[in-house]
Amino acid sequence: MTIKIGVISKLISRILFIIFIAMIVAGVVGILYKEDYMPFIFSSIIVLMLCIILFMISKKNHNSDRLKKRGAYVIVTLSWLIMGITGCLPYLLSGAIPSFVDAFFESVSGFTTTGSSILIDIESLPKSILFWRSLTHWIGGIGIIVLVIIILPTFQIGGYHLFSLESSLKEKIHPKIKAVGIRLLQIYLGLTLIEVALLLGGGMNIFESLCHAFGSIATGGFSPKNDSIAGYSAYIQYVIMTFMLLSGTNFAIHYYLIRRDLTKVRNNEELTLYLKAILIVGLTISSILIFRMHKPVEESFREGFFQVISIITCTGFSTSDYLLWPTYAWVLIFLTMFLGGCSGSTSGGIKMVRHLTILKNFKRMIRQLIAPRSVIVIKINNKALNEESNTSILTFVLIYFLIYVSGTLIMILLGTDIKTAGGSVATCMAGIGPGLGSVGPAGNFAHLPDAGKILLSFLMLVGRLEIYTILVLFTKNFWKD
Amino acid sequence: MTIKIGVISKLISRILFIIFIAMIVAGVVGILYKEDYMPFIFSSIIVLMLCIILFMISKKNHNSDRLKKRGAYVIVTLSWLIMGITGCLPYLLSGAIPSFVDAFFESVSGFTTTGSSILIDIESLPKSILFWRSLTHWIGGIGIIVLVIIILPTFQIGGYHLFSLESSLKEKIHPKIKAVGIRLLQIYLGLTLIEVALLLGGGMNIFESLCHAFGSIATGGFSPKNDSIAGYSAYIQYVIMTFMLLSGTNFAIHYYLIRRDLTKVRNNEELTLYLKAILIVGLTISSILIFRMHKPVEESFREGFFQVISIITCTGFSTSDYLLWPTYAWVLIFLTMFLGGCSGSTSGGIKMVRHLTILKNFKRMIRQLIAPRSVIVIKINNKALNEESNTSILTFVLIYFLIYVSGTLIMILLGTDIKTAGGSVATCMAGIGPGLGSVGPAGNFAHLPDAGKILLSFLMLVGRLEIYTILVLFTKNFWKD
Repeated sequence: MTIKIGVISKLISRILFIIFIAMIVAGVVGILYKEDYMPFIFSSIIVLMLCIILFMISKKNHNSDRLKKRGAYVIVTLSWLIMGITGCLPYLLSGAIPSFVDAFFESVSGFTTTGSSILIDIESLPKSILFWRSLTHWIGGIGIIVLVIIILPTFQIGGYHLFSLESSLKEKIHPKIKAVGIRLLQIYLGLTLIEVALLLGGGMNIFESLCHAFGSIATGGFSPKNDSIAGYSAYIQYVIMTFMLLSGTNFAIHYYLIRRDLTKVRNNEELTLYLKAILIVGLTISSILIFRMHKPVEESFREGFFQVISIITCTGFSTSDYLLWPTYAWVLIFLTMFLGGCSGSTSGGIKMVRHLTILKNFKRMIRQLIAPRSVIVIKINNKALNEESNTSILTFVLIYFLIYVSGTLIMILLGTDIKTAGGSVATCMAGIGPGLGSVGPAGNFAHLPDAGKILLSFLMLVGRLEIYTILVLFTKNFWKD
Repeated sequence: MTIKIGVISKLISRILFIIFIAMIVAGVVGILYKEDYMPFIFSSIIVLMLCIILFMISKKNHNSDRLKKRGAYVIVTLSWLIMGITGCLPYLLSGAIPSFVDAFFESVSGFTTTGSSILIDIESLPKSILFWRSLTHWIGGIGIIVLVIIILPTFQIGGYHLFSLESSLKEKIHPKIKAVGIRLLQIYLGLTLIEVALLLGGGMNIFESLCHAFGSIATGGFSPKNDSIAGYSAYIQYVIMTFMLLSGTNFAIHYYLIRRDLTKVRNNEELTLYLKAILIVGLTISSILIFRMHKPVEESFREGFFQVISIITCTGFSTSDYLLWPTYAWVLIFLTMFLGGCSGSTSGGIKMVRHLTILKNFKRMIRQLIAPRSVIVIKINNKALNEESNTSILTFVLIYFLIYVSGTLIMILLGTDIKTAGGSVATCMAGIGPGLGSVGPAGNFAHLPDAGKILLSFLMLVGRLEIYTILVLFTKNFWKD
């Protein structure tokens, strides 16, 4: 395999430039709050230097050739690794997180919009560091929605080639891919601004409003507060719930909503399943809170639906510690971690469209058992799903479970108890945040062994990049020419 | 749907006749051991009466029409239900198991060759009852191998229609289906007799030799001893290990071995995966026993491989309580419960051929990601697997997990702790025997709530009849005409 150094350097240098700008912004926050902004100056200088070096390399090795499919997998994995590594710098240089493994975990958790944290006392940290932490979510969220659509096409790769699994299902909302990217970016920015405005209106200060908006639009889940969203008013909780729900929706749906193309919204089966799942699990949990834990009705609905929306959209904010609920309630929450939001959103996990495909396969199977000669085509949103994509989706889910089980077994081998192991791998693979046991909503990931933190960081990347993008790099065939 | 009463009655009356004979045999055991044989007399009279009534009905409603596919699903499910219900009679009438739910659980566990038990002190029961218990395994084992091949074809249904999933993979070893059935029956009987002889040679008495041979050839797992196989000599343990291993193998392989058709054996990829899985998990567990638990080498290998073979073949005999091993060891044993033996054997669970299919799909996926235009046909044993069967296998495994998760959630809702819930559902669906927590090798299923026992009995049937056969009966489409 010939590696196109020019193309790769050009892309990575662009990503480094975005990181550089973000660090400057966080540095400005430091200045405004009269904090030590030097860590951001140093970090941004390092990143800028790397950016310039790679830019020079890309100029020298300029080649107009199309990047082969294989190169694209390398680039995507490399981009997220580079974001993870450079994202550590402010944590390390400020001394906020002295260990590299911890800083890497926190940084990868940020950029993959996971939200799992190794911080024990969040509020004791400088505001600029907390801002940087939330900003990594927001950049990661843009990354997953736009990176593959706006930046990669300039290398003539095409986002649709990359996540072939996603793209076969994603509605093509506009013929020109770059225009779509810009439109999605506008929606992303618009949603963030509206949420900030609504949070400010509820009495939240500008710093926390920005951090929480970043955390919810990217379905990340980092909060600058130790108790996440629990300490805020009901109004604030409803606002955040709404924006988590919106961010777990396919961004193409927002585009249709803006264009008032309501038939397309109504016909979207993934959206229907997503809303149904939230409604069913939410009502179940709320009922348990009302009838078993004897909480007031409004509070139960708010608490139940907040947690369910937070988990299904893979955000990870919390207003309550679900581990204090009855066993069957938190087991249900744990199972919900395997749902995931809609494709084309910032959410992670298996995602609704894949569950929809499984359900349709099951229905088809039953019909074929009764009438063996019938040929039934599976349709998603009234469009036929070809058999190749269908098989690839079923295989995806099975491999997801296989990786989940292997990851859990390794965590147990590393000395973690079963609940914590199973919960941490589930939450990290799906990009949620809190897990079970000692990594629940009231806990954190600090006490895990270093090897466990590295494994979980790897699994966050695997989950975020839809498994295949990374796994393909570990196959013999990939490197053979 | 028109139900062909004649055909159904004829089949059920045949099954009842087999049960009648079996009860007489168990009664004779009672006479030989000078025990109360009246329960078997009464039971057999009831069964014989039912048998005759159904035979009369079948004569009256004689129709030479082919039974439709849908009727076949009804018949198979009904057969196993009738076996389960009539199998209770000796337990209830003798007072050995006074509760109907308990007796039904024990009976279904027997006929589905599961081996999970509600008995607390096995050795306190009459020998005739223990013999009956083991005999239900042996009949169930014949059932799953031969019933669908010998009996059903007389109704012109054809075993291949029934388990369309199995049959697409099963080697057609002989053109005439009835001849194949008789050959398989001979192998089944032959294996039983050889094992009995070898056990007798090791100093085991004839009663225990028969019970253990029934339990291992059917991959059932009921033992007339409280401590299962733990109290026997190393020789006995090796004999039972060997016969569990043979019984978890596709019976077509035995047929080839007898005919010295070694190329067919060597080319059987499922067999290779089965042996590899046992070797890898067995060596892992043995090493843990040697290096972590500091047991002697030979003992560790024997103990490790015995448990691994017992679980993978879905037998459930034990020589050691794996719950006393380090956490990662028993978690590995738990995961092994989702493997299962070979198709066309008496073992249960997901089975190796399905795992093989998943692995091949994953490999194909990776190759298609690198070279998108390549068309790769999945081959099992050098034969192309059509895409329909492929999708049906992947869907099967996903539905298996869905049922597993739902079953576990219901068990938790019924008040069972998580470990016991997860372990009992896994072991019953796969037809193994012991689970985790309070239903481990040293425990039993007696203390579970009645609703839990009924659920687990249902799941044993669902697992034994390859899910679809039963689930199809619960669909709207099935009953619609």
